[in-house]
Amino acid sequence: MAAELTTRELIAKHRPTLDQALEAIRTRAYWSPHPEHPKAYGENGSLDAAAGKAAFDALLGTRIDLGQPGTDDWVGAEVSPYGIELGVTYPHADVDELLPAMKAGQRAWRDAGAEARAVVCLEILKRISDRTHEFAHAVMHTSGQAFMMAFQAGGPHAQDRGLEAVAYAYVEQVRTPDTAEWTKPQGKRDPLALTKQFTAVPRGIALVIGCNTFPTWNGYPGLFASLATGNAVLVKPHPRAVLPLALTVQVAREVLAEAGFDPNLVALAAERPGEGIAKTLATRPEIRIIDYTGSTSFGDWLEANARQAQVYTEKAGVNTVLVDSTANYKGMLSNLAFSLSLYSGQMCTTPQNLLIPRDGIRTDEGPKTFDEVVADLARSVDGLLGDDARANALLGAIVNPDVKARLEAAAGLGEVALASREISNPEFPDAVVRTPVIVKLDGAKPDDEAAYMSECFGPVSFAVAVDSAAEGAELLRRTIREKGAMTVGAYTTDEEIERTVQEVCLEEAAQLSLNLTGGVYVNQTAAFSDFHGSGGNPAANSALCDGAFVANRFRVVEVRREA
Amino acid sequence: MAAELTTRELIAKHRPTLDQALEAIRTRAYWSPHPEHPKAYGENGSLDAAAGKAAFDALLGTRIDLGQPGTDDWVGAEVSPYGIELGVTYPHADVDELLPAMKAGQRAWRDAGAEARAVVCLEILKRISDRTHEFAHAVMHTSGQAFMMAFQAGGPHAQDRGLEAVAYAYVEQVRTPDTAEWTKPQGKRDPLALTKQFTAVPRGIALVIGCNTFPTWNGYPGLFASLATGNAVLVKPHPRAVLPLALTVQVAREVLAEAGFDPNLVALAAERPGEGIAKTLATRPEIRIIDYTGSTSFGDWLEANARQAQVYTEKAGVNTVLVDSTANYKGMLSNLAFSLSLYSGQMCTTPQNLLIPRDGIRTDEGPKTFDEVVADLARSVDGLLGDDARANALLGAIVNPDVKARLEAAAGLGEVALASREISNPEFPDAVVRTPVIVKLDGAKPDDEAAYMSECFGPVSFAVAVDSAAEGAELLRRTIREKGAMTVGAYTTDEEIERTVQEVCLEEAAQLSLNLTGGVYVNQTAAFSDFHGSGGNPAANSALCDGAFVANRFRVVEVRREA
Repeated sequence: MAAELTTRELIAKHRPTLDQALEAIRTRAYWSPHPEHPKAYGENGSLDAAAGKAAFDALLGTRIDLGQPGTDDWVGAEVSPYGIELGVTYPHADVDELLPAMKAGQRAWRDAGAEARAVVCLEILKRISDRTHEFAHAVMHTSGQAFMMAFQAGGPHAQDRGLEAVAYAYVEQVRTPDTAEWTKPQGKRDPLALTKQFTAVPRGIALVIGCNTFPTWNGYPGLFASLATGNAVLVKPHPRAVLPLALTVQVAREVLAEAGFDPNLVALAAERPGEGIAKTLATRPEIRIIDYTGSTSFGDWLEANARQAQVYTEKAGVNTVLVDSTANYKGMLSNLAFSLSLYSGQMCTTPQNLLIPRDGIRTDEGPKTFDEVVADLARSVDGLLGDDARANALLGAIVNPDVKARLEAAAGLGEVALASREISNPEFPDAVVRTPVIVKLDGAKPDDEAAYMSECFGPVSFAVAVDSAAEGAELLRRTIREKGAMTVGAYTTDEEIERTVQEVCLEEAAQLSLNLTGGVYVNQTAAFSDFHGSGGNPAANSALCDGAFVANRFRVVEVRREA
Repeated sequence: MAAELTTRELIAKHRPTLDQALEAIRTRAYWSPHPEHPKAYGENGSLDAAAGKAAFDALLGTRIDLGQPGTDDWVGAEVSPYGIELGVTYPHADVDELLPAMKAGQRAWRDAGAEARAVVCLEILKRISDRTHEFAHAVMHTSGQAFMMAFQAGGPHAQDRGLEAVAYAYVEQVRTPDTAEWTKPQGKRDPLALTKQFTAVPRGIALVIGCNTFPTWNGYPGLFASLATGNAVLVKPHPRAVLPLALTVQVAREVLAEAGFDPNLVALAAERPGEGIAKTLATRPEIRIIDYTGSTSFGDWLEANARQAQVYTEKAGVNTVLVDSTANYKGMLSNLAFSLSLYSGQMCTTPQNLLIPRDGIRTDEGPKTFDEVVADLARSVDGLLGDDARANALLGAIVNPDVKARLEAAAGLGEVALASREISNPEFPDAVVRTPVIVKLDGAKPDDEAAYMSECFGPVSFAVAVDSAAEGAELLRRTIREKGAMTVGAYTTDEEIERTVQEVCLEEAAQLSLNLTGGVYVNQTAAFSDFHGSGGNPAANSALCDGAFVANRFRVVEVRREA
């Protein structure tokens, strides 16, 4: 097949971006090629706000025909957390036909080499980037994120994480040269001389199991890491969040075909309601890599049962913020209030347990009692969300009825310091919008422990009274060790407490944000610089993104012969 | 504790070697800092042949007291395959006391950083290198290798593999900088600015489960990869091959202590006969990494059951050589004869199945029938081993009664093309020394398939008649896929067959040696250049040595604060 896009053209177009990404993961300074501002789009072929909205609207009620082999039905029943029925249907695959078809193009993809694969991946990301406005609506109406967050987290930030994975995959593959001449001296005899060829070979077909809340942000790292290392990739989206990944698959298939590769290297596995296809796929012998984001129970199941595959999981944890003291009380409160509110706390990185000494804390505004800190935080959240328009823009919608149920039950777990409120969304009257609840618990009471030592995913936080900051650090340690943590925060002006908390995080392998009072929040990480998760505590068995995330997605085969 | 060896001194001493190792794994050209020739030792503090032998003799009948905490008994009952009772005893550990003690020094070891850990590891390797003659006897009298092989494979080649692991571990850890300044523009507002610290943190205690045949060569990669990435390392040797690893642990403890670190970062777990301590240790929560070389059944057990740990296994495979045609018939025969004979075929890399077209092959000496090829190979082996002194020097001793029993049973599996002979060893009359057996089988007969599709570890090879080279390539594929392979060899002058075999090896992830007729053998790999195993077929889940072998032995913890 004559490629419309030659590898040479793609290298010329994307190699500078790849090189910048390689430099960024080395220095971990700020960098992104994907603009965060909606107004940055609309030129050079990218869709502006209106065109993106129109493109999204045009998708509603349509069938997304990816042209995949083995399509035996059309499925799809997404209902936006904002109330819209998307009415989009997707191919349902006969996997006995689809999986073999996905292998047909693997040899050519392997033989293309690491650089060609990287620039094809970058072209896919570029076309997705150009459609960021369209993807933003797709993410908003599947995850329930507010538009601006769906735009940024589902657009440029997700694309950054995908590009970061491509950069790690590329550099890992080129650590070993394509060929080597090996000449070993033998004293007076002729040296031994071998010519060696090294080829990065894929493991097989990779399965990406998407999540409801961050279909692109959590899906892209595994998708691009596997594709860039030569594997075919089957994307199994969450049944409530198919559209953003179906569009992604569509773009990937287009680019692969234009570049002369088999489009079946990337395919979608949409499912019927209740079909539970993930378990079936995850144990198929063809599936050699799995990336999963979701519940601990299914993540643990995958790790235990998908033994034929490399399994990368991001599960659930219990995130803690230890509050000992602060030199910027207002900044701390507003920073925490934002973290608790953003996307109604429906982030795997949102703090859940706020550990506060029962005797109170030291601040630049003088000592504050436990109750004062909690009341001030509640006021800060109330202030942040006092205006309904702003509240809607920050909170988004409750993603599913389970979250709503947990939120409603949380008020019964202890004394409510801040009650959850309903917010009406004038644009989407069916959206379920709720402000966070803050519940006071006592760290020393066994009944309360049952609550704060369980993940309560959603807009629920516990203000947990602890005997001292040092006791809090020990509870932090136990929480990470037993339940895992995607993030840890701490506020302290005390060097010893700071050292103690750092040591806990180093020993339990948790990512720590210290004394954040400005515009960076504990629940946000930046690709190319911050690690998302550590892979060293029970919340996740891998981190985004590091060498370990990519190094075992391919193997190196050596062919040696006498020179 | 005041260190006798400062990190600065160690860096000055070893950094140039580390840099050379880093360059070697990048170019994969020939390199080694460890001399292969026995006469190269004896100066600059290293033991010469006589001193090494004397040092080994002085160990016999002694107690090796490592000064480990929790020692509750002394155990050891090694009998050399050459007939000597070693009479050496080792500490038996109360693991409930030893494991906590091993964690005490982890913080300081972690905080020392990647470079300090690397140069401490290099100092350990240097001291082991200086005692290569002593280690050679220890390896010989536990593995049954002949002296020269024990010297080279157990000495410099093992040290090379250890150093290679240190180099990979070092470079993996320094991919992320210790600190980064992250400044994100915010349009007209002040930029967001964070200071980030990144620390490589260990997983915990690593367990090395040693094997009988290559205690140092197979033990060092995991030991040094784990130690260099900040973990403590518990070495559980094979009960028949304790001494080389006990000496290794002794040296490591000495160097750690002299460098100001806790010697308990490396410890030995010797066991009573039949105690089966590996299973107990492997599932202890403190054990977070396991390196294992040995049987497929226990390797599979570890992968399935030691779920709290990263498990790196080298198990068993069925190694194949496909013989299609050759431009150097004599060279092929002598190369194969050597490969089948070296260490009585007791290498995980020794070829087992020689696939030969039943209609014969093309050679530079004209066409040869299947029977001629097999008979010529048998003659070549006979010629190689015709002289008893040379035979002893190549074959070594049969390592244990199981191998002897398999060898004896093999003659009943088919037509014997070359019978195994007993060789007497004048120096060690109790040594069991045997030449290899070659048995003819028919690739098309189901009864024969049961034999050639099982690993028959030891000096047993099957000359398997196949319908054609192409059929042979398909049998090769099936063998790798179902049974795994550490090595594959092929002889062909036909470009299409060569491409076919290469494609099979790329698709099934097996390391291929093509047309070896000189002084390099399919069963030998060189550190810094050749990969040992691929990690992509059932014979092993990891390769020596690559990024994947080290990248998940540590995690990176980030601490970020506002700048």
